[in-house]
Parts: sequence; C-alpha cells; structure tokens
Amino acid sequence: MAGGPYELQPIGWVESPLVDREHAPRQGTEGAPDAWLVFDDGVRVALADLRCGSDVVVLTWLDRARRDVLRVHPRGDPANPEEGVFSTRSPDRPNPIGLHRVGILAIEGTRILVRHMEAIDGTPILDVKPVLDRGLDG
Amino acid sequence: MAGGPYELQPIGWVESPLVDREHAPRQGTEGAPDAWLVFDDGVRVALADLRCGSDVVVLTWLDRARRDVLRVHPRGDPANPEEGVFSTRSPDRPNPIGLHRVGILAIEGTRILVRHMEAIDGTPILDVKPVLDRGLDG
Repeated sequence: MAGGPYELQPIGWVESPLVDREHAPRQGTEGAPDAWLVFDDGVRVALADLRCGSDVVVLTWLDRARRDVLRVHPRGDPANPEEGVFSTRSPDRPNPIGLHRVGILAIEGTRILVRHMEAIDGTPILDVKPVLDRGLDG
Repeated sequence: MAGGPYELQPIGWVESPLVDREHAPRQGTEGAPDAWLVFDDGVRVALADLRCGSDVVVLTWLDRARRDVLRVHPRGDPANPEEGVFSTRSPDRPNPIGLHRVGILAIEGTRILVRHMEAIDGTPILDVKPVLDRGLDG
C-alpha cells in the first residue's frame, strides 16, 4: 500500500571541516562549524532567489547512517533509556534524511556558505526550502 | 561527486479526505484537515515513544509532484514573479520531500491522528522527527 521505493538524486553536497561522525556535534546549535553547500550546476536557476541573511531548511541524505536501527539511547548515551527513533533526532533511522535550519552567510554562484551546519563533509544535499513566516517547519 | 542515487523506502502513508492536489491547501495552517498517518507494522517499535499532544515533523514523498521543475510562480499564481523552487514550498522540485509540522491528536497502535496535514490521501511517509526545544526545524 505504501508503494515505492522512490529514488533520490542528490543536488549537491556539503563541504565541511567535520570529517567523521564521531566528532560531529549532535545539533547545529551545539558548536557546529560553518560549511559550504556546493550545488550541481543543473540546479543553478532553482537557487537564484536565495539571499544572504535569510534562514533556510536544508535536507540532506545521511549516507553514513544505519537504516536498520529502530530504537536508540538518545544522544548516544547508554544512561538514557532507549527510545524509538521517531522520538529522537538520531541519524540512524529507516530513511536517514537530515533536517538542518541554517542561516545563509554568503553566496558565490552555486556555492552557499551557511552557519552552524552539523552534517559531515561530503554529505549529499537533497533539498532547500524557505523557513515559513511563523518560524516553524510545517 | 554528490553520489547517489539513494533509495527511499516508505514507512507508511497518509489517510486524508484530501484526494487531489488541486483542492489541497498550500500549507497545513491554511485550512488543512486532520489526517491519519498509517504506519507499516515493521516500524511499530520506532513509534512507541510518540505521545498525544506533542508536535512532530513529518517528512513525506510528494509522489504526484513534478521533479523537472526548477522555477515556479509562488503559490501557483501567475501574478507572482517566477522564483527558483528552493525559495518556495512548491511540491514541484528535484526531490519532492514534503515537510509538515503537525500536532498529534490520537494514537491507535500504528495509526496516528494529526492536526492540519496538507498532504493528499495516499502520500507516502518517509520519516517522523521530534520538534526541537527551540521550536524550529534544525
């Protein structure tokens, strides 16, 4: 009934000083560095109206995550009781899509510098969306 | 460099009185009805810690969207100047992933009733994430 599978085609990737998952902060607000979003030339016209100073939602494919994990100790701490992954932001989940709210610092053609991005170097980018006025993600 | 493609496997689907895209509201806050999220039994343990009254982010696959559209008239209104899709919430975009912030109204096993969901009936569900404390989507 649910259909699928469906095929994702990345539109770019993350360039970041973060090179492994062990050292990545758990959220962008927890000391994540600035990172470049490097887009394929084929989506240049789709990017053309993004502006410095605005916030966007970036969706990524967490390609180093495990897809067979359904329960985790939140924040990777065994002292935290195990929870279903849909109650956590664990990268390990059936469809490991990363959700990042970031501010745009600079735009150079198809390269966009964003603040506080916790995805690691080489992470594929799937989509960029504006933040809605009500400041939420719906 | 970006790698891929990657394969999404839906974890459930939306049951909604909205049956066609033409009549769907553009955002959940614009008169969208309540809808059931119906999950595959295989992800039951991943859902177990969701609670009535909490807000979650639901990611869907907008399977009736066009993936070859890079610029649109925002809100489908030809009077609005064309913009790149990454500056809009248009369902038509290279990877048509829907982002919905909804409140949980009821939970019956693997069926979850949510408020104000603008996705149409049969839309595949990809992921569910908690809303972070700062109330945003990062």
